[in-house]
Amino acid sequence: MEKNELGMTHKKKEFSEWYPELLIRSEFIDYSLVSGAIVFRPSAYFAWEIIKDYVDKEFKKIGIENVYFPLFIPESLLLKEAEHFEGFSPEVAWVTHAGKSELSERLAVRPTSETIMYYSYAKWIRSWRDLPLRYNQWNNVVRWEFKNPTPFIRTREFLWNEGHSVFASEQEARAERDQILGIYLKALRELTCLYGIVGKKTDYEKFAGAVESYSIELVMPDGWCVQGPDFHYDGQNFSKAFDIKFINKESKEEYAYQNTYAISTRVLGVMVATHSDDKGLVLPPKLAQKQVVIVPIPARSEDIDKKLQDYSEKVLNTLKEHGLRAFIDNRDNYTPGYKFNEWELKGVPFRLEIGKKELESNTVVIAIRDTSEKKGVSLDKLIEAIDNEIEAMHNRLYENSKRMVQSFIHNIESYDELKKNIANGGIYHAPWCGSTDCEIKIKQETGAKITNIPLDQSDLHGRCIYCNKEARYMANFARSY
Amino acid sequence: MEKNELGMTHKKKEFSEWYPELLIRSEFIDYSLVSGAIVFRPSAYFAWEIIKDYVDKEFKKIGIENVYFPLFIPESLLLKEAEHFEGFSPEVAWVTHAGKSELSERLAVRPTSETIMYYSYAKWIRSWRDLPLRYNQWNNVVRWEFKNPTPFIRTREFLWNEGHSVFASEQEARAERDQILGIYLKALRELTCLYGIVGKKTDYEKFAGAVESYSIELVMPDGWCVQGPDFHYDGQNFSKAFDIKFINKESKEEYAYQNTYAISTRVLGVMVATHSDDKGLVLPPKLAQKQVVIVPIPARSEDIDKKLQDYSEKVLNTLKEHGLRAFIDNRDNYTPGYKFNEWELKGVPFRLEIGKKELESNTVVIAIRDTSEKKGVSLDKLIEAIDNEIEAMHNRLYENSKRMVQSFIHNIESYDELKKNIANGGIYHAPWCGSTDCEIKIKQETGAKITNIPLDQSDLHGRCIYCNKEARYMANFARSY
Repeated sequence: MEKNELGMTHKKKEFSEWYPELLIRSEFIDYSLVSGAIVFRPSAYFAWEIIKDYVDKEFKKIGIENVYFPLFIPESLLLKEAEHFEGFSPEVAWVTHAGKSELSERLAVRPTSETIMYYSYAKWIRSWRDLPLRYNQWNNVVRWEFKNPTPFIRTREFLWNEGHSVFASEQEARAERDQILGIYLKALRELTCLYGIVGKKTDYEKFAGAVESYSIELVMPDGWCVQGPDFHYDGQNFSKAFDIKFINKESKEEYAYQNTYAISTRVLGVMVATHSDDKGLVLPPKLAQKQVVIVPIPARSEDIDKKLQDYSEKVLNTLKEHGLRAFIDNRDNYTPGYKFNEWELKGVPFRLEIGKKELESNTVVIAIRDTSEKKGVSLDKLIEAIDNEIEAMHNRLYENSKRMVQSFIHNIESYDELKKNIANGGIYHAPWCGSTDCEIKIKQETGAKITNIPLDQSDLHGRCIYCNKEARYMANFARSY
Repeated sequence: MEKNELGMTHKKKEFSEWYPELLIRSEFIDYSLVSGAIVFRPSAYFAWEIIKDYVDKEFKKIGIENVYFPLFIPESLLLKEAEHFEGFSPEVAWVTHAGKSELSERLAVRPTSETIMYYSYAKWIRSWRDLPLRYNQWNNVVRWEFKNPTPFIRTREFLWNEGHSVFASEQEARAERDQILGIYLKALRELTCLYGIVGKKTDYEKFAGAVESYSIELVMPDGWCVQGPDFHYDGQNFSKAFDIKFINKESKEEYAYQNTYAISTRVLGVMVATHSDDKGLVLPPKLAQKQVVIVPIPARSEDIDKKLQDYSEKVLNTLKEHGLRAFIDNRDNYTPGYKFNEWELKGVPFRLEIGKKELESNTVVIAIRDTSEKKGVSLDKLIEAIDNEIEAMHNRLYENSKRMVQSFIHNIESYDELKKNIANGGIYHAPWCGSTDCEIKIKQETGAKITNIPLDQSDLHGRCIYCNKEARYMANFARSY
């Protein structure tokens, strides 16, 4: 590589330096003058658009409709559900002035939209015939983190979906959980190639205002957890606070049952952290804005170089006609080696090298980003080969993610094991009595919280690692971003 | 109509009462507790999504990429381009606190993103090889209007695209204008069925920071103009303020040339105002979330009603298989007449009435929202008929919009004609000398501004209606929202 400043200077094992360097040098994101907020450059925003479009289509299939509510929430409205307000107010950004005027009431920049949406829901819902009401919005939210910000994982503004459903019965509301978590899991698997751990949040860790929270927990390569997409069954908590009542089939007035759920741009951070390597970004092939780069290898002969150019364009057209996102790197001021490094840094999944030999044999060389493997393939088999490589890389990345997450899970029976090992990261799967007291003490003493309680509890056994009472759950303890 | 509160109480000719009533009663939008901001209910957001997806696809075809920049802009950054700051600061919403802490610097909630984007552009652009850089974002912006808010037309928050391009030459930058305005015009015509007047803004009315601004001016049914999508050639104004320089092909450092452009949710307001009527909403068929409602007409015979139900479902499946957005209104607590009124109020373009007669003859009756026409059609011709009706309604709405706009244009030769008629609304196409003095005086004396100077100036003639000097332009004078 000619220009040293292009490449990575940190190795993946130096995770805390490598991760931000990766994001910046690969031109996935940039910082801005607003501390704690990031700029999504084209390749990051492209990946988010694919996730968003996929999830949105799945939502629409099951009858969810999109809406848009205002960004600002009057303080008095945010105060209406006390637990919810307490959960969010420490990190609310407040608008106090407009132009030169001071506002009569402060406005919160939405940290989430329960309060402003449910004020409207109460007006709109009258009878069981108005239910279910399943609305969603794709928007930006602000939570003013005072901790050290980490791009995507902990930023002061992020993009997400927030789904807010209302049902006529607890049963119907609860039935939505598997539908929504199923869509999120599918998006994680089919697009980001990420493996997650599905489980229930403890009462202590659940969403402010929910009856029960469920999460898909993701893991960073340093073994710290990150809460991924989530789903909250809110019961009648908000409907009582916001007076969302309906006349049921028995002509009686009843408070409605509600859910909320979200997937955010946070998953992009886990995705690139999980798949990338010492050379730079590795992007799952279905999410890569640029899937294939064609690099002609000049032959120092004007005649051959002209033919190489024509041949490259033929290859490009073949790829494009098949719907692949491909381009030729024709820059004459960089060597092929420089170009190889640059597109590896930026995470282009496949590179086609085309030199004199390929020209003469009607072939191309495919270089595969994650394995560094190179394969020759004849032009008439190219599309088939690329399609296969996309599937193979996709599956490989997912299996790697799954293997990484599972390698971080340690089945433990004693508190000592947790205390001894938690500094190395990892998830400690342990018997727990279910008491919040034990949970809080463990968190205070080790920094590990219960990320979630896996839905599959078939391995329940033993005694609480903290108080030694009989275990009621197998819980996952981990340090979490 | 059984429930009187469902219907419209104002006629379209009572425009200022009719328009907000229309939006609320048709459940297109709702107000919220934040004054001046609106809630986009599903049918409004759906229409916006179609416009957004269409424009986005067209942008991508010509090489524009999407990005996302932070919502907040530090005050010092907003101050960097003086004219731009002066233009926007009177209506900026300011964040001054986060949680319990006061911020060291106030943050503007973006009224537009030039300043925060161009700070990054200056870091990213080094050489002519980095150009053109054509980035766009779809987001929400806040402009704290102190005038009377009008839903969609003048709201404190709205949704839009903001495109921000950088080119290596003035010529290339200017060439983008017709590309972008072409896409906007096509979206207006192909989706919203709106006719607009393309022209150049005067120096006095142009965008704060632009060298030249172009707009598509739209007209409300009361004859007042609304600025629709726009395009600004910014020359080197921002590149000088933000230091966006590049090394050109002659190895010399040069400031870059920039454009900005936008289409916003404002067009939804003009769209529904233009097409709707005394009965309620009329939605262009390509943008309607619900395109076809099927209303079975009970025959007071359980046996026939059961057959009607089966037949309706067969019709529904036929429509859905063809990709039409259709549904059956099966509610048993409303009469067919009530349902007819409700879906007319809500702007469903086509209603299929299915009674005993239709059942027996294997036909349906299509009722068409905008003309109130009814037509019988046999089931095997249904898809063809609906497709034709969609095209016919679409073209009819567009032609109506064109006719309405053109009927508002008055060619005048004297200032008296403007003064005498401006209170009735309308666009006054008149000779103008080109001086800002005349323009300002006319605005002060009549409330009419120059909405734009049509690109086609083939009818240029006569003397300025204000100062009587020789005309340099034919300009459109109108009162504007």
